[in-house]
Amino acid sequence: MGEKKIKKNKERCTLQEILTIIGGKWSMSIIYALFPGKRRFSELERMVTGINTRMLVKELKNMEANGIVVRKVFATVPPTVEYMLTDKGKKLEPIIDQLYQWGVEYVGDGVT
Amino acid sequence: MGEKKIKKNKERCTLQEILTIIGGKWSMSIIYALFPGKRRFSELERMVTGINTRMLVKELKNMEANGIVVRKVFATVPPTVEYMLTDKGKKLEPIIDQLYQWGVEYVGDGVT
Repeated sequence: MGEKKIKKNKERCTLQEILTIIGGKWSMSIIYALFPGKRRFSELERMVTGINTRMLVKELKNMEANGIVVRKVFATVPPTVEYMLTDKGKKLEPIIDQLYQWGVEYVGDGVT
Repeated sequence: MGEKKIKKNKERCTLQEILTIIGGKWSMSIIYALFPGKRRFSELERMVTGINTRMLVKELKNMEANGIVVRKVFATVPPTVEYMLTDKGKKLEPIIDQLYQWGVEYVGDGVT
């Protein structure tokens, strides 16, 4: 029983770690915008409603550090910067989809 | 295409609404602790590692207001207060389970 308690504590710590990665106000919306494939910074800025440039830079940096997205810079003039999900990030797709479905069913009237 | 863009915007708004409900540092850990059934306040306080009394009160109030948990007070001396998930809250179980599995696979060494 003591062992079980320790395991349970670890499970909850992991949930908290997960939320520090994807529980922010914008993270899931950015991941969602990247599901279909790579996006330029300016596209993400347009797609993620309500975010500003500074916040998007910050979120993408965090997501890159956490291995959710990769950033690719092309030596064009001006430089083109593209973002795409890593395999780790792509694995979140069915989960975020279900969370979204839950929201459609239960949260306010967001999609009516 | 205009219509599709509007729908997409609404989807992202809903994801943000969902995160205001369950994206907080403790919400998922509390929901997780309630999966097996009802819990007393003191049990939750022990189970959710690192939370303090004030934060637990606040989180449970929010979750009650959002229809995730119900609170039941029994007229014992001292009064007994129990919390349990609503149907809306229970529907999160498979989603949080998958998120947890994702974390086990990809986030640090939380459960090794």
